[in-house]
Amino acid sequence: MADTKDATSSNQMWGGRFASGPDAIMEEINASIGFDKKLFAQDIRGSIAHATMLAEKGIISHQDKGKIVEGLNTIMSEIESGRFEFSRQLEDIHMNIEARLSVLIGPAAGRLHTARSRNDQVALDFRLWVKEELVKTEAMLTALIAAFLDRAEEHAETVMPGFTHLQTAQPVTFGHHCMAYVEMFGRDRARVRHAIDHLDESPIGAAALAGTGFPIDRHMTAKALGFREPTRNSIDTVSDRDFALEFLSVAAICAMHLSRLAEEIVLWSTPQFGFVRLSDAFSTGSSIMPQKKNPDAAELVRAKTGRINGSLVALLTIMKGLPLAYSKDMQEDKEQVFDAAENLELAIAAMTGMMRDMTIRTDRMRAAAGSGYSTATDLADWLVREAGLPFRDAHHATGHAVALAEKKGCELAELSLEELQAINPAITQNVFDVLTVDASVASRQSFGGTAPSEVRKQIAYWRNRN
Amino acid sequence: MADTKDATSSNQMWGGRFASGPDAIMEEINASIGFDKKLFAQDIRGSIAHATMLAEKGIISHQDKGKIVEGLNTIMSEIESGRFEFSRQLEDIHMNIEARLSVLIGPAAGRLHTARSRNDQVALDFRLWVKEELVKTEAMLTALIAAFLDRAEEHAETVMPGFTHLQTAQPVTFGHHCMAYVEMFGRDRARVRHAIDHLDESPIGAAALAGTGFPIDRHMTAKALGFREPTRNSIDTVSDRDFALEFLSVAAICAMHLSRLAEEIVLWSTPQFGFVRLSDAFSTGSSIMPQKKNPDAAELVRAKTGRINGSLVALLTIMKGLPLAYSKDMQEDKEQVFDAAENLELAIAAMTGMMRDMTIRTDRMRAAAGSGYSTATDLADWLVREAGLPFRDAHHATGHAVALAEKKGCELAELSLEELQAINPAITQNVFDVLTVDASVASRQSFGGTAPSEVRKQIAYWRNRN
Amino acid sequence: MADTKDATSSNQMWGGRFASGPDAIMEEINASIGFDKKLFAQDIRGSIAHATMLAEKGIISHQDKGKIVEGLNTIMSEIESGRFEFSRQLEDIHMNIEARLSVLIGPAAGRLHTARSRNDQVALDFRLWVKEELVKTEAMLTALIAAFLDRAEEHAETVMPGFTHLQTAQPVTFGHHCMAYVEMFGRDRARVRHAIDHLDESPIGAAALAGTGFPIDRHMTAKALGFREPTRNSIDTVSDRDFALEFLSVAAICAMHLSRLAEEIVLWSTPQFGFVRLSDAFSTGSSIMPQKKNPDAAELVRAKTGRINGSLVALLTIMKGLPLAYSKDMQEDKEQVFDAAENLELAIAAMTGMMRDMTIRTDRMRAAAGSGYSTATDLADWLVREAGLPFRDAHHATGHAVALAEKKGCELAELSLEELQAINPAITQNVFDVLTVDASVASRQSFGGTAPSEVRKQIAYWRNRN
Amino acid sequence: MADTKDATSSNQMWGGRFASGPDAIMEEINASIGFDKKLFAQDIRGSIAHATMLAEKGIISHQDKGKIVEGLNTIMSEIESGRFEFSRQLEDIHMNIEARLSVLIGPAAGRLHTARSRNDQVALDFRLWVKEELVKTEAMLTALIAAFLDRAEEHAETVMPGFTHLQTAQPVTFGHHCMAYVEMFGRDRARVRHAIDHLDESPIGAAALAGTGFPIDRHMTAKALGFREPTRNSIDTVSDRDFALEFLSVAAICAMHLSRLAEEIVLWSTPQFGFVRLSDAFSTGSSIMPQKKNPDAAELVRAKTGRINGSLVALLTIMKGLPLAYSKDMQEDKEQVFDAAENLELAIAAMTGMMRDMTIRTDRMRAAAGSGYSTATDLADWLVREAGLPFRDAHHATGHAVALAEKKGCELAELSLEELQAINPAITQNVFDVLTVDASVASRQSFGGTAPSEVRKQIAYWRNRN
Repeated sequence: MADTKDATSSNQMWGGRFASGPDAIMEEINASIGFDKKLFAQDIRGSIAHATMLAEKGIISHQDKGKIVEGLNTIMSEIESGRFEFSRQLEDIHMNIEARLSVLIGPAAGRLHTARSRNDQVALDFRLWVKEELVKTEAMLTALIAAFLDRAEEHAETVMPGFTHLQTAQPVTFGHHCMAYVEMFGRDRARVRHAIDHLDESPIGAAALAGTGFPIDRHMTAKALGFREPTRNSIDTVSDRDFALEFLSVAAICAMHLSRLAEEIVLWSTPQFGFVRLSDAFSTGSSIMPQKKNPDAAELVRAKTGRINGSLVALLTIMKGLPLAYSKDMQEDKEQVFDAAENLELAIAAMTGMMRDMTIRTDRMRAAAGSGYSTATDLADWLVREAGLPFRDAHHATGHAVALAEKKGCELAELSLEELQAINPAITQNVFDVLTVDASVASRQSFGGTAPSEVRKQIAYWRNRN
Repeated sequence: MADTKDATSSNQMWGGRFASGPDAIMEEINASIGFDKKLFAQDIRGSIAHATMLAEKGIISHQDKGKIVEGLNTIMSEIESGRFEFSRQLEDIHMNIEARLSVLIGPAAGRLHTARSRNDQVALDFRLWVKEELVKTEAMLTALIAAFLDRAEEHAETVMPGFTHLQTAQPVTFGHHCMAYVEMFGRDRARVRHAIDHLDESPIGAAALAGTGFPIDRHMTAKALGFREPTRNSIDTVSDRDFALEFLSVAAICAMHLSRLAEEIVLWSTPQFGFVRLSDAFSTGSSIMPQKKNPDAAELVRAKTGRINGSLVALLTIMKGLPLAYSKDMQEDKEQVFDAAENLELAIAAMTGMMRDMTIRTDRMRAAAGSGYSTATDLADWLVREAGLPFRDAHHATGHAVALAEKKGCELAELSLEELQAINPAITQNVFDVLTVDASVASRQSFGGTAPSEVRKQIAYWRNRN
Repeated sequence: MADTKDATSSNQMWGGRFASGPDAIMEEINASIGFDKKLFAQDIRGSIAHATMLAEKGIISHQDKGKIVEGLNTIMSEIESGRFEFSRQLEDIHMNIEARLSVLIGPAAGRLHTARSRNDQVALDFRLWVKEELVKTEAMLTALIAAFLDRAEEHAETVMPGFTHLQTAQPVTFGHHCMAYVEMFGRDRARVRHAIDHLDESPIGAAALAGTGFPIDRHMTAKALGFREPTRNSIDTVSDRDFALEFLSVAAICAMHLSRLAEEIVLWSTPQFGFVRLSDAFSTGSSIMPQKKNPDAAELVRAKTGRINGSLVALLTIMKGLPLAYSKDMQEDKEQVFDAAENLELAIAAMTGMMRDMTIRTDRMRAAAGSGYSTATDLADWLVREAGLPFRDAHHATGHAVALAEKKGCELAELSLEELQAINPAITQNVFDVLTVDASVASRQSFGGTAPSEVRKQIAYWRNRN
Repeated sequence: MADTKDATSSNQMWGGRFASGPDAIMEEINASIGFDKKLFAQDIRGSIAHATMLAEKGIISHQDKGKIVEGLNTIMSEIESGRFEFSRQLEDIHMNIEARLSVLIGPAAGRLHTARSRNDQVALDFRLWVKEELVKTEAMLTALIAAFLDRAEEHAETVMPGFTHLQTAQPVTFGHHCMAYVEMFGRDRARVRHAIDHLDESPIGAAALAGTGFPIDRHMTAKALGFREPTRNSIDTVSDRDFALEFLSVAAICAMHLSRLAEEIVLWSTPQFGFVRLSDAFSTGSSIMPQKKNPDAAELVRAKTGRINGSLVALLTIMKGLPLAYSKDMQEDKEQVFDAAENLELAIAAMTGMMRDMTIRTDRMRAAAGSGYSTATDLADWLVREAGLPFRDAHHATGHAVALAEKKGCELAELSLEELQAINPAITQNVFDVLTVDASVASRQSFGGTAPSEVRKQIAYWRNRN
């Protein structure tokens, strides 16, 4: 009695949200239709394949199968055209569709769930969805790589400072820098492809967890749905969300790559760097400072890495320590994957657009490349190569030259031959050939190096495989 | 040229989502109105306080202020009644409201943004929202604690096995077990209160980042909005999201507590344990197995800990390494907090309901409490207390008794006095007084112990502070 | 002046750790030798391959190369035998070895660093280490799978309750349950193999970030070190830690699988379940409760999933937003991977041991399998198959039967034919053939199902590939 | 038989690590002495307090207590002087110390464990350690704040560009920027203090989980150990690790602040920004590029945020879903906290040192502050204040002025009065008074604003509380 009063008053305290008590709470925590309706097409395709197989194997009649398929196709077009009314009382996409099917075709609808369970049904729907998303991600990465290849080709000879620790290290080309991202997104794509390979098994027919006594043919449904083969263990089939975790892992690493690019774009857009100018499409103004041009899209892409890491952590945590087979905890898998997928797509699209649109300020890049003693390594290497010094000694001598130039406030190439010879007498006039930015860049022809000739080979390699 | 063609074809490839190219991408990644409209009430309250202060300080006229306030009140009721049309082109809640204000009251609307910026405006709105959410969370924790106090009182003498490593350790009372959760949620509530205390400063008036030259009075707006005082540094004010991170940290620890309770409820509901029976309101059936009664709500609560950890990780990652002051990355803060808040509320409500509704199967608890040599410690303690053995020796002797009972397939109390004396001759008939479950429980009267008398003191302590 | 005094006093305040001020702090934060000495063998192998290539290409003399190789071999045996003195002043494993080489062979040591940098050197060492660890993980997973295959074979016909939501769902066999883990660890192994494939490129020769002007042959070093090919972009090469992240992702998913098994072992070891008895080797006693036998190893394995998730989050966060190329942040990569690798190995080994050692209590499993109306689905399926009911109607009728049995306090098979016919008149005596646990299990012969015949096919499949 | 052979061969395969089979694995996974020996002082202090209380309450004799205390003091000095031999067979610090005590004082040692368990003992040791660490962190934050206050005072009038989106927004002072960090670290310190407050309860006396029947006095031990009071529920006491999670949460937010400062230092040290020059103590050179001066310490501090987030995630995950009371999973708590604590200390110390040591290049800051139309807001504000324009119109007019200046390649102050009047005729000569950097900064006197007068007030406020 007291309890009831307490409950009432606390419900009032919480406001209207849970006003009707336990039922309202349960409906809100339990219903998944709010997000799993995204799976409607997969659910219907799966049911059609299942019903077709049931009829082929004589488990249901061909007539019933005909009604089921027709009814499901009707529902598909109802949903696609926005005429379908989703009901939260019916909990999830499976029950929403089955209830509607029952209205449309009557008792035959009740035969569709033969030899299956919501456990294998949701595993199927979700796996189909993730597979399609991976295929889409693969295509989007290909488009992003294409954008980088185009910029790399255009700027195979554009010099810029190569940084380590964000300090000027050695001159590189912007084309070479672009190709570094091609490698990253190429690896991401390879992971996407392997993820597809790993998940390419059909769960339908695992039933609740133990398989079924009906004489179903899981190879038939697997083939109809475009899977390589059926899964091999029914308990695992309804317990497994590796495919979702692998999608999130791959997405998290890709988002990290995008965050590095985003950081660079933010840096490069500062007045201090001034290496690029973003298009208006990917930047915004300020509500108070009329002069601002902010790299909003890049900042938001940088932030997406947090969001996707969060989804990965969420699902890893959700799956931790769940006893076999299906537990309801696993219903929390979908929103994490949907959110990560949507944001990864958006981030890739934004970066593809930004890379295509942005203006490269080659003059600013060249000026920065030539300052900060960026060719010091070239001097050291010259001493090794031409004067036979051990690298460590050459490194030491070059340190003296840099110190002298710093003291004089000039670049290395502006020191006189005499000054250089005072540091090491073996130095000759030839040394000046390696102290320019262009000579430095052109010389680095080792496999994968920054020389334009080498960068063009990298581009050709990737054009071939993109 | 080629670029344009590529872009077109890749857009086509991605399907309709980004069909119109860069603008569609930018709008989708940049606009926040989809989620920040949740802040409408806070935004309007903040604007009213700001306009009132501007008029008080002579920065705008009282007439303009009157129009602004009236217009904002109109907008408030438009939004509350669902008549307001949100526009994604207007990006965010601030611009949506200001644009509508302009339509409603004309040029005076343009004076509202004097001496402020979206940077301090969003900081204000979000901080107000988080503060209200913390206050709500505090009340919900109080209701949850009340539910436990009621069950604890009801079951102050109900014995059950106390587990460590999920092995039977010593008998405890169910009331005592309930009170452990009261401690946890009590700590959560203390953290919530301190989080409120930490964020109780008004950001408005920090402007873009540097403060303003207008003679504003930030103490006046702080007071009007219910804050203790204004923030003390304008750069920090627009850069800071500690209040959101602290909310998420507190929520993550609370969710972890809820996950432990959820795990116990799942365990206790198994046929093997059978300690509780969930109400129908908080359990569901199966689509294939007619006999099932699944603890869905508990499982979903257990999963929420993953979701909230994910949000915490997301925002910690988003904020990592952001240079001062405001960066657009910070726009990704809200969805994480909104999602965590909504799910934490739901989880607390579900647990409050479940605890109130569930049936305690005291017979099953008692039977389990008495098996598994749960009073072995009592025997050891008796040997220390009555026979003067060092604890380590008593522990050793008790081990022998347990081994003997195991061999005989009986409980400790079922060994004969002779058998016990063969293990240690100091044992007397009195020992049997401590080998029952009730004696064991009643004896543990140390402060915070499981004796019913002690549990009632704990209940009284908390009743006093709830 | 004041600063100095302050500094002194705060140093004193912090105790001895940073007593000598900035230098002590910098040495502690900067030096990596404490953990990267683990890479000594990889470092030496890499240097030998590099020196050999330099001599082949005429960049250093064969004589110098001979001295270098001999010196490095000496150092290898010094370290292996514990006679090497590591110095924190020399920061890292590379400088420790090079400094020692200099002592051993004089100026020729200075030629080893020609055409390379610590950036590509550490990338090489770490990549070699991760590759070896992946190979080791692959072998350990194979051993773990073998343990499961053995238990599955032994228990292909042992019935146990199959759970969903930790409620009794349908009878399954313990062999089938074991095979679910074989699928999981099989997927883990597939991911390990692809991870090896993804990282199988040699970084050495990328130099600081831009490649080098020396006429090196990166294919030669790649081949000497067992890599498929050299990396293709020098900037990416020194910036990339995907191989470490992929290792951690794969490890996190595998640890999650182990945590599920651990949870089940903890559950199964409770007096309430009593499905297994752990060997003494993998359980421990209590310091206070002489009767306890705790599943410590399983609990610790369950906890490892947190630790490995933590390492994954750490490195994803570390890499977020780092501009190219190498940044010192990346030095924090190793400890995360080392810790995850060590703990994953330990967890796999413990689980392999536990699975091999533990006693399966087939009587307890069978008893539990037969209770809780576990064959209700079989009744429903019979009604569909034999009486031609739509599944939904059959499900409904079965619900009535369960309710009746619950009311009578008996199992389904204990209802009389009359009672069943009162629910649905189509029911015949034959129905009792499907209501036993053994019949239920034997009937589920769908591909991947729990029937012993099907489980044996699964075992054969995996024996073939293990 | 086959199993044994398999096990042998797999052990061989794994190399020597687990050569002796299950026992070696169990010892390695189970023993905690490798890390929990760090708790020796806390363990001994706890035992002394416990023994003293036992004697006071007549549970052990004063003579035994005397021996115990003397023995423990001996052990304390043995450990402190490095003469103690830790044994992994003895698992943990508690058993190592108790075993040694037994050797030193004989049977009386066996009385120490009366009325306690390892469960409450480890909770005590760890809680004491965390409390001490929090106190140390508080002091270190005070020192860091002091460093910022000194730099803020020194540079209260040093102008620099204030950034939003890393674009020049408005001029601010470096002192003001420093004070933003004071606010952050001040909040961290407030959280540290509340964390101390939350954990300030003594666990000892909770025993295994149920309390004890011995007539102990937990208030006496609490007082002796410096706690406010004993914990109130024995089940919760041995199950609770909130204090560790709260430490990690607080540390993670603090590390995030440090990462933002680190990012700024890395940026400011680039040749492009050039705002600061790091001392040699906190930067390093390159193994290949003699000209480099790398901000290694700042980069490593930036990375620490990943590491500490990882530890937080690890422990949140470990604690997820653990049934009450103690589970062995909780043994994994310590390494996470130890690692986070060590690294947070190091990061704070490094930042305190860096901030004190680094050279502020005021000329570079001033030059940057004056470019990029940083005073555009001042123009807009002037138009509002002096010409009575609504802010939105003033913003619009200023946009025109910026566009004109951009076109002419000059700053706003370099436009002529005529040009400005062409944009808005209300503009007068006075406007130039607000277009300089110094005037802009001086004008922002709102509470918390960037005006030097305001910054000095902020400094005074904090000097008062530091």
